[in-house]
Amino acid sequence: MTKLYLGIDLGGTNVKIGLFDSEINLISKTSAPTQADKGPEHVMEIIAQSSFGMFENIDYSKDDLVYAGIGCPGPVDLAKGIIVDAPNIPLFNGYPLREQLSLKLGIPVTMENDANAAGWGEHVLGAAKGVEEMVFLTLGTGIGGAVITNGELVHGHLDAGGELGHLVIFPNGRQCGCGQKGCAEAYASAGNTGNRAMEAIAQGKKTSLEQVKDNKGTISCKDVYEHRSAGDEVAGEIADLTEEVLGRLCVLIQNFISPARILFAGGMIAEGQTLLDRIIEQYRKFAWPGREDTLEICFATLGEDSGIIGNAALAMKASEK
Amino acid sequence: MTKLYLGIDLGGTNVKIGLFDSEINLISKTSAPTQADKGPEHVMEIIAQSSFGMFENIDYSKDDLVYAGIGCPGPVDLAKGIIVDAPNIPLFNGYPLREQLSLKLGIPVTMENDANAAGWGEHVLGAAKGVEEMVFLTLGTGIGGAVITNGELVHGHLDAGGELGHLVIFPNGRQCGCGQKGCAEAYASAGNTGNRAMEAIAQGKKTSLEQVKDNKGTISCKDVYEHRSAGDEVAGEIADLTEEVLGRLCVLIQNFISPARILFAGGMIAEGQTLLDRIIEQYRKFAWPGREDTLEICFATLGEDSGIIGNAALAMKASEK
Repeated sequence: MTKLYLGIDLGGTNVKIGLFDSEINLISKTSAPTQADKGPEHVMEIIAQSSFGMFENIDYSKDDLVYAGIGCPGPVDLAKGIIVDAPNIPLFNGYPLREQLSLKLGIPVTMENDANAAGWGEHVLGAAKGVEEMVFLTLGTGIGGAVITNGELVHGHLDAGGELGHLVIFPNGRQCGCGQKGCAEAYASAGNTGNRAMEAIAQGKKTSLEQVKDNKGTISCKDVYEHRSAGDEVAGEIADLTEEVLGRLCVLIQNFISPARILFAGGMIAEGQTLLDRIIEQYRKFAWPGREDTLEICFATLGEDSGIIGNAALAMKASEK
Repeated sequence: MTKLYLGIDLGGTNVKIGLFDSEINLISKTSAPTQADKGPEHVMEIIAQSSFGMFENIDYSKDDLVYAGIGCPGPVDLAKGIIVDAPNIPLFNGYPLREQLSLKLGIPVTMENDANAAGWGEHVLGAAKGVEEMVFLTLGTGIGGAVITNGELVHGHLDAGGELGHLVIFPNGRQCGCGQKGCAEAYASAGNTGNRAMEAIAQGKKTSLEQVKDNKGTISCKDVYEHRSAGDEVAGEIADLTEEVLGRLCVLIQNFISPARILFAGGMIAEGQTLLDRIIEQYRKFAWPGREDTLEICFATLGEDSGIIGNAALAMKASEK
């Protein structure tokens, strides 16, 4: 009997949907604008239509759908199946998402935090395939994380674990959006790497990034790395600190749970091998002497598909319980 | 059929042994000097004799022994069943401990790191009974830890996880014995709280602890707390920093895996409720705003029995696999 699974990645801008077989081979995928401002009922309808729409051009029946997995932004309450507080899709807060989606699709639905789902995707099919002890870090506006120990995702009490971007690296350091000071995210997310360049200019530092600021009004992480490559000293200092913080973060993670592998993901890894090499260099500088060779640090490989893959794999796992 | 389990806590000075029934009720316990300098074969003999000796005065047969658990100091290789590198019992390094003990006792043996076993004891019967997400910290010469997520001990790659004393609190801070700088242990273990008092005196600070140093040659954590209570300012500063570091450590732990409870254990908790209150105060000062009420911080309750209880419970768990 054919068994099919849906992996759904709900974002603030788009919702991505993948249809998978029981070996997590992708059969078909689609995406649609989330249109979150029209309310969660509308979004549930879009997800159902898009999901069923995929069956029009393929040689499978939607009767073979067994289970769906959905990954959601923001803190989630997995027991209740709701999003607790997602700034990008505020109308979803408290909405009985898992239950309503299950009714729309006519199959059971499992729910996960989006970073956890993406990390699980890399664990199942990506750069940490089969690695039972691993950590996944996304570098974007913030720093998100997923922790896998004993081959299982760590949710923690109140599903509040894995906030690796909010591990404090520099006590009493830069103010973080979370309210703490000196968090890894306050320095080393793509967003805050750009923001620190804006601050450097405000402090009167001379940098070629000033032109970027004058033209665009903001500075991105990509700008910082481009200007560092072109020889700008201030851009170099800013990028250096990003890499130092990420290296120190890897040391904290290693000493805490000793993963065999840490993966970096998110838009920032487009900077490529040079970025990875520098993070590893900083990690080795601060690591517990003698342990430097027991941790692999690498980039995730599934890109934007990690979410749909992870959610489908979690759906399959839930269906087997 | 009666099933009995041995919980064995191998220390550098003494080996403690407890005999338990299948509800982890203590039937009998004993202890003996480890005499590690006579070599591991001798110690195995002592453990076997002490274990069988307990049956002389009780109404159980040693034929009912099903499984034993042994907790060992230092890094262990659980797959091989050996101690990798324990400074206090160097003759044990590489010795096939689990296998040899199993031969001596005539029953299968499971092995665990000592801090993990003690943490498991608190999870099974102590201050975190039934808490599936918890962290256990021992404050002694160093700071040891056990991490439980999804109801299971976290060992990590190469059994090297849970080194919570070596999470860096102050980058480029005080030199730690591990080779890193600024580790929690470098400030806040009982041993280093005393050592920092010695350093303060060497730096010329005026403190009533000077008398202690002159009399004993060293200063203990207990001395620091006594002199703080008596109003000594320098002792107060040293104890304050210990508590700040422990508070910050709790914040790191919470944001990483979100335990429902963190337990402190070890000799230092004899300082009592005042110490606990101050750690909690510091934790709340540095915690992620809004999360302060989602974590309980308390003292372990099993004292020195946590090891034998944890090892017996792990033996029972292993026997059920």
